[in-house]
Amino acid sequence: MKKNYMFTPGPTMVPAEVLLEEAQPLIHHRTPQFSEVLREIGEGLKELFGTSEDVYLITGSGTAAMEAAVANTCSPNDTAICVKSGKFGERWAELAEAYRCNVVNFDLEWGKSFTADQAEKLLQQHPEASVLCVTHSETSTGALTDIERIAKVTSRTDTLLIVDTITSIGVHAVEMDKWGADVMVGGSQKGCMVPPGLSFIAASQRAWSTIEAATSPRYYLDMRAMRKKWSEFQTPYTGPVSLARALRKALHMMRAEGLENIYERHARLAEAVRESMKAIGLELLPENPANGLTSVLAPEGIDSGELVSKMRDEYGVTIAGGQGHLKGKIFRIGHMGYISKEDLLVCISAVERGLQDLGYAFEFGSAVSLTQKLLFEK
Amino acid sequence: MKKNYMFTPGPTMVPAEVLLEEAQPLIHHRTPQFSEVLREIGEGLKELFGTSEDVYLITGSGTAAMEAAVANTCSPNDTAICVKSGKFGERWAELAEAYRCNVVNFDLEWGKSFTADQAEKLLQQHPEASVLCVTHSETSTGALTDIERIAKVTSRTDTLLIVDTITSIGVHAVEMDKWGADVMVGGSQKGCMVPPGLSFIAASQRAWSTIEAATSPRYYLDMRAMRKKWSEFQTPYTGPVSLARALRKALHMMRAEGLENIYERHARLAEAVRESMKAIGLELLPENPANGLTSVLAPEGIDSGELVSKMRDEYGVTIAGGQGHLKGKIFRIGHMGYISKEDLLVCISAVERGLQDLGYAFEFGSAVSLTQKLLFEK
Repeated sequence: MKKNYMFTPGPTMVPAEVLLEEAQPLIHHRTPQFSEVLREIGEGLKELFGTSEDVYLITGSGTAAMEAAVANTCSPNDTAICVKSGKFGERWAELAEAYRCNVVNFDLEWGKSFTADQAEKLLQQHPEASVLCVTHSETSTGALTDIERIAKVTSRTDTLLIVDTITSIGVHAVEMDKWGADVMVGGSQKGCMVPPGLSFIAASQRAWSTIEAATSPRYYLDMRAMRKKWSEFQTPYTGPVSLARALRKALHMMRAEGLENIYERHARLAEAVRESMKAIGLELLPENPANGLTSVLAPEGIDSGELVSKMRDEYGVTIAGGQGHLKGKIFRIGHMGYISKEDLLVCISAVERGLQDLGYAFEFGSAVSLTQKLLFEK
Repeated sequence: MKKNYMFTPGPTMVPAEVLLEEAQPLIHHRTPQFSEVLREIGEGLKELFGTSEDVYLITGSGTAAMEAAVANTCSPNDTAICVKSGKFGERWAELAEAYRCNVVNFDLEWGKSFTADQAEKLLQQHPEASVLCVTHSETSTGALTDIERIAKVTSRTDTLLIVDTITSIGVHAVEMDKWGADVMVGGSQKGCMVPPGLSFIAASQRAWSTIEAATSPRYYLDMRAMRKKWSEFQTPYTGPVSLARALRKALHMMRAEGLENIYERHARLAEAVRESMKAIGLELLPENPANGLTSVLAPEGIDSGELVSKMRDEYGVTIAGGQGHLKGKIFRIGHMGYISKEDLLVCISAVERGLQDLGYAFEFGSAVSLTQKLLFEK
């Protein structure tokens, strides 16, 4: 028997209860039944985003919601400051380029976190900027950005703060309203424990004035159409019936666990991964690591891609390698969503086995032992 | 016991075998396993589209694929001729407007089918047109357009023929290459028997020259990115793992039935619906009806919306009402996808019951009896 485990930074493992919702007989999308599904989803997403604004459901992956953020707030020749903190930070810049913005690229070394001081300076240099696009938890590096402090800076300016919270929703407390962020986007296949295919977007009141006036071409991702239809709990186009019901179920499960407990669980899992990796002599990539995934530098002479393949093909445990210039150099352990403390032992065990196979010298068993202590010792 | 039946023009009923594929434990999207899923899907879709070109999978509803068609082939100020044959024909015009085209609207009375003669005249008047956007099977009216004859006209010009085949794929034979159509789009939730959330797009070689040169902003729907990734059976962004596996299963089932048999089944179902409705004194809306759905004029004094609600809420049988100015005036019976001849009796029976409840005078039982004869008499 070989069981398959996913410790990936998305898609993540999905509870059987959620999978079975997808297997329910179809209902039509223009029915009171489906509107009730959307209403419940809307409630759950508002809690996750920490907002009293409506959060809209998009049939599309996280990138669709990121594009919606840019297309709805930017007009051609607007200045967009994009923090290139990793592969997904770079995606902001690519999107802003595609929409003919004057893109101000802020290149950050991968693994570093953008700071409020840097935001302050950039906005002084570019007071004309319409948007500042940042990443809360950068999936390619595992670094976390302090959005609360950055939002304090943008709130005092006319620049909208657009935040990719795809990997942080359901992992870290997100407080869109309290922080004063303007647009936030999320996805289904990370902390929300749902298969890929859905994404989410919400906008602040001041963002809405910009959205109404923006002149970039948009149709499927037009937030004005989403708002109009959402007022009666509908989607502008055929709704994602099966995935939406899966999401409703996942949100119910999350409410039952309690958001505070969920954030605490992720913090504990993250700490155990970080400490156990350090205990076997490995270094973490990010200075300020997120709680949804941990990026670890592969030991000298070991290709992280080989580690990933070996773990997946021989032990049935899938983690992720590095992206872009970090390919082969880091491995990324996802511990977000439907991951229990018990599951984490499986993951750390497989990492130890993979490293052992590839000839890395360390005290075999010590990472698992430390994980056991950190998670379960009384 | 009240069982639920959907005779809707999309989403349609999904076989349990397909639903259960959605309930399979997740796999990661950047794996050989998922690439194999995409490879098999690609093969199946090429058969359905009748093309040797690759057909790409989009995570998004049919409208996303329609937008991809416009955004990838049109540049601002290009002339786009849009045949407004119904709600979905109008969507072409809305999309072309959103992308700043010079839109030539060709208004067709709802229920009529666009003809090759009309195409000929339009292209003589507008030889500068970059694209002619048409609908193969118009979901709002049930009318079918002869794409083969229209493509004969566009093939002789520099105007690309863009066709919405969302409601015809898996219902009618579609021959993109043989006919000479340039861009075709489809969706998962119609003849393909899969829940909503996926759409498909393919382009001819001559369309690709336009796509490469087009200057409209696009990112998530950029076909150049799709082509690049599809060459290694990947998607540019996180792939729709669960829905894709459902689609693979549905395509396997379709291959087992045989495409010719599928088209023949739909033709038989459509004929039975049309004849049984006419037998109880009702008129069809379209002159040239499609085989995936039948639009029927509600009897004088009866609101079709009431019929739809009554059938759904009291008998568990969902059909669709009219859209736009036909709201209340027509009802639409969907008979595409996972609908057997046996199922059709359930549908016609419920229509009879609904009409009886609303006071329409007809010989009760005669529509069911005719259906029985047309489908099963030896």
